[in-house]
Amino acid sequence: MGLVVQKYGGSSVATAERIKRVAERIVATRKDGHDVVVVVSAMGDTTDELMDLAQQVAPVPPARELDMLLTSGERISNALVAMAIHSLGAQAQSFTGSQAGVITTSTHGKARIIDVTPGRIRAALDAGHIALVAGFQGVSQDTKDITTLGRGGSDTTAVALAAALDADVCEIYTDVDGVFTADPRIVPDAAKLDRITYEEMLEMAASGAKVLMLRCVEYARRYGVPVHVRSSYSDLEGTIVQGSMEDLPVEQALITGVAHERGEAKVTVVAVPDHPGVAARIFRTIADAEIDIDMVVQNVSRAAEGRTDITFTLPKSDGPRAVEALENRRGDIGFDQIVYNDHVGKVSLIGAGMRSHPGVTATFCEALAEAGVNIDIISTSEIRISVLVRDLELDRAVTALHAAFELGGGEEAVVYGGTGR
Amino acid sequence: MGLVVQKYGGSSVATAERIKRVAERIVATRKDGHDVVVVVSAMGDTTDELMDLAQQVAPVPPARELDMLLTSGERISNALVAMAIHSLGAQAQSFTGSQAGVITTSTHGKARIIDVTPGRIRAALDAGHIALVAGFQGVSQDTKDITTLGRGGSDTTAVALAAALDADVCEIYTDVDGVFTADPRIVPDAAKLDRITYEEMLEMAASGAKVLMLRCVEYARRYGVPVHVRSSYSDLEGTIVQGSMEDLPVEQALITGVAHERGEAKVTVVAVPDHPGVAARIFRTIADAEIDIDMVVQNVSRAAEGRTDITFTLPKSDGPRAVEALENRRGDIGFDQIVYNDHVGKVSLIGAGMRSHPGVTATFCEALAEAGVNIDIISTSEIRISVLVRDLELDRAVTALHAAFELGGGEEAVVYGGTGR
Repeated sequence: MGLVVQKYGGSSVATAERIKRVAERIVATRKDGHDVVVVVSAMGDTTDELMDLAQQVAPVPPARELDMLLTSGERISNALVAMAIHSLGAQAQSFTGSQAGVITTSTHGKARIIDVTPGRIRAALDAGHIALVAGFQGVSQDTKDITTLGRGGSDTTAVALAAALDADVCEIYTDVDGVFTADPRIVPDAAKLDRITYEEMLEMAASGAKVLMLRCVEYARRYGVPVHVRSSYSDLEGTIVQGSMEDLPVEQALITGVAHERGEAKVTVVAVPDHPGVAARIFRTIADAEIDIDMVVQNVSRAAEGRTDITFTLPKSDGPRAVEALENRRGDIGFDQIVYNDHVGKVSLIGAGMRSHPGVTATFCEALAEAGVNIDIISTSEIRISVLVRDLELDRAVTALHAAFELGGGEEAVVYGGTGR
Repeated sequence: MGLVVQKYGGSSVATAERIKRVAERIVATRKDGHDVVVVVSAMGDTTDELMDLAQQVAPVPPARELDMLLTSGERISNALVAMAIHSLGAQAQSFTGSQAGVITTSTHGKARIIDVTPGRIRAALDAGHIALVAGFQGVSQDTKDITTLGRGGSDTTAVALAAALDADVCEIYTDVDGVFTADPRIVPDAAKLDRITYEEMLEMAASGAKVLMLRCVEYARRYGVPVHVRSSYSDLEGTIVQGSMEDLPVEQALITGVAHERGEAKVTVVAVPDHPGVAARIFRTIADAEIDIDMVVQNVSRAAEGRTDITFTLPKSDGPRAVEALENRRGDIGFDQIVYNDHVGKVSLIGAGMRSHPGVTATFCEALAEAGVNIDIISTSEIRISVLVRDLELDRAVTALHAAFELGGGEEAVVYGGTGR
């Protein structure tokens, strides 16, 4: 048999009882004859509680110490899962990210994985043991300090280990049944996808789908690791993320799903001179403030004036800072005004088949028009159409698109709660 | 200036508020110009809570995983103290036992320190930083697994680091003012000792005094580390543990203090054949059951019968197992019966001056007789007289001896609570 990597999130191991349930599933997988490596997040709200403790003793905790503190959470959960496995009669050993050979950059709080050298994991597997690896952490190549990987870190750890160990699959256990054609809390008849390509999943994640983080999907794509997103509450098959859209048969279903994002705001830099370098100055200003940008839209200039508007979206929480940064450079950039709008929502249609089927954009716009949703800005990629709409119209837009492209499964999707992260 | 090692116990760092108080003291020490290394135990009851969690998932948790779990406690507290120090404007870094170079045997749960190679600590100090080191843990020389050091482990870590770094002093911060001539909760006028030799402190610890563990004092004695036991609630000088009794002036005070132990039981193996090898068989049986023995008393045999009694004391919790182990070997050993008594208490008089002053034993016995306390068994060393008495008479015995040897300070000792550990 082969090697399986499994990842369990915080809610899956929130209590002693849940830990024992997870241990049963792991042991069952081992009994099927597989080598098993398991990545476990910290129990429940542990990470938040530790962050809270940190802020009680220091308003601005130093990053190195924050990583030393937060990584305790995964250490605790992994040791407990190993113990539970042991009491079921199987052999297990827990390892920190450092012990597992997860080598990272030195940026505390959001380190990137440079390499994975899982020698001790391989040795444990060869000795017949189940290996538990603390997610969300590694060791810095330069300083030998413990680092944490930032959001989605545990999923990324799991995929990185799967790649390094040449696993057959990386199973991500979560509190939803898989990847859906839309958020079931908005569209009750959203269907669970059986399969989705890496590129489509990347677009879904980038467009607001919370079930897998972008970096984890990109890592999987780069190393060709099949990722199986499934529920930790049942034995149902979930969604397999695998394959490139280049390999899809021409007759492949047109559209995969609808994603939405509520957390963005829109900034329009009005009437900038239409010269080379102006856009660069705007985006360098934003980058220097360490703000990430999502959609960027610039239309043709109003020729008579030689000016144009540049619009971009960004996380709402960064909005005020971005506006302030731009206002401070008004002279350099030369705009008339900044328009800021945080009552927007983004909805995206994703599907590999979009490339070969004309008319998708037309159907898209007709569906929104029929639902009375006004399109603010449009931005597209080869397999995605995204629009910004009024936030109060977002749910209606999602529902309209889902119906227009006939994505519904016919049955109501079961929603357990959670964001599918 | 020199190098100071400070150790803070769990109650000293039980809350965010206490952590900040500890950080203030540490920074003040640094501002006095010293290099500072700090060993911190886990916050409050963290270790017990983690043990409890462990037992919820596995009745008999594997030792390796238990160590992975329990060491998270010290990791958390040390990172938090480092953060608090940082917010006071000083530089600090926290290190695990492994990172600090604490090398141990591989016996999980009660590893012994083999060596301490504190290169990274030294580098941090040279860079002007305060170094925090997680107590109670190290890394196994053979397996490279994380190990915990057992009871008194954090004190031992602190002393071991002080020895390896050639510190001027190792300050043990606790919830009592120092080492007293007797337990102030029994003897209100017990006096705080300003100084005590290593050998006397060893005897006090072995005789029931809980303020420092035996292994920590022995480590300090072997490497000549001065240990300052003091209160974390005040700036009062505590008790300095230093020096050998060989170096004491002849006119040195006769007696240092009275210690007591309530947790022991007495086992008498009655009428064993008075041959070579019988005692060995008895104690090998007990050792095989992994039970530690304290006092051993064997008196001359009843010549007519060629038989004798062997009595020993042990922790009450091990009593039933010891009796069972001996009963299982009745044929081999050849005794008439085992008498077991767990209603005993041990009281000990300790003092380096005992060697050169005859009459101490006489005064000892007279004091107990006058208090109406019957002596069950007597056992002595060069600087200690220990007796076993009825448990209900223990407090009376302690008080009588303390008064007979005029150890009282005249003022009532302040008791903060806690066992002085």
